[in-house]
Amino acid sequence: MSKQPVTIEFSLPEWVNGYCMSYRATSNLSERMQFVIKAAQKNINLKTGGPFAAAIFEEKTGELVSLGVNLVTTQGMSILHAEMVAIAVAQKKLGTYDLGAENVASHELVSSTEPCAMCFGAVPWSGIRTVVTGAMDEDARNIGFDEGPKPDDWIFELASRGIKVIDKVERESAVEVLTEYKCNDGFIYNSRES
Amino acid sequence: MSKQPVTIEFSLPEWVNGYCMSYRATSNLSERMQFVIKAAQKNINLKTGGPFAAAIFEEKTGELVSLGVNLVTTQGMSILHAEMVAIAVAQKKLGTYDLGAENVASHELVSSTEPCAMCFGAVPWSGIRTVVTGAMDEDARNIGFDEGPKPDDWIFELASRGIKVIDKVERESAVEVLTEYKCNDGFIYNSRES
Repeated sequence: MSKQPVTIEFSLPEWVNGYCMSYRATSNLSERMQFVIKAAQKNINLKTGGPFAAAIFEEKTGELVSLGVNLVTTQGMSILHAEMVAIAVAQKKLGTYDLGAENVASHELVSSTEPCAMCFGAVPWSGIRTVVTGAMDEDARNIGFDEGPKPDDWIFELASRGIKVIDKVERESAVEVLTEYKCNDGFIYNSRES
Repeated sequence: MSKQPVTIEFSLPEWVNGYCMSYRATSNLSERMQFVIKAAQKNINLKTGGPFAAAIFEEKTGELVSLGVNLVTTQGMSILHAEMVAIAVAQKKLGTYDLGAENVASHELVSSTEPCAMCFGAVPWSGIRTVVTGAMDEDARNIGFDEGPKPDDWIFELASRGIKVIDKVERESAVEVLTEYKCNDGFIYNSRES
């Protein structure tokens, strides 16, 4: 076995930097969501991963902190859902594993689709204060993804930890991305299908 | 903004390689768990992260595929729970995001403590076929960690996806690691404490 410590790395697709530069800070949630939904669409169009994107914004100013896209099939790790990528990038950028720390602005996660069970579980650990979602769990399931077992009262569970959820923002546009992916025979990368 | 794509990396602590070389493949679950519990203890002793470890084994042969330890505070990302690290390392090593794929042996995740909500959610996506746990959710909560909202029937939810759970293996030894961490004023890194 190599003497070097094992290092794991993953990278955002090359198009992400340029795309992020097109974003202008906005207080309008629909506009923040449209930015994220278009990123999910680009991720498919440019074949850099699955039909999901998520971004972290400073809640008050709308400044973009990080954009994540689903990288499971393209970077070979099942944990690389868009929300997980966005969280990791934001924390590295800000130099803290707690986006809700005392000296840090409030942060909001905007996700093109409601988080799956893993990403939902990641939210309380991350320090995020608000979660904004587009497509719903059932929309992802309708195209074949097993989103996993979130508790039925997942919104309440986050609320009880002081984390707000605003759902169905631009849901129709978000669902279009999923539907188009499915219609173009996009690969549905659940595991253990064999 | 830099023109280079954003790259995120994290590394296992330097002691992990040498420690893994001490492992001899065993079919005995308690022995696999003791290996993992000792890793959790080393992680604290050597100050490389939180009091948690998890390893992925080939279920049948007991061959060690990956060892993960909690790296949240030491590598600055809230997603770096031991199970997430073990999953990522195993998938990179085997070159697949699906540890349950057709051409791949069955894999088992052995975790010193029952997975939190995030890690529980990660299991179905990972391809793992069996989860073996030591300390229980309540043991982690007893020392102050908010393990997050898993559904009450989390074991059933995994079973319904063909994923077996074997719990409370060497629980007492696993709990000792947590208790000692707490007694030595180990930092409890929930977020949003401010």
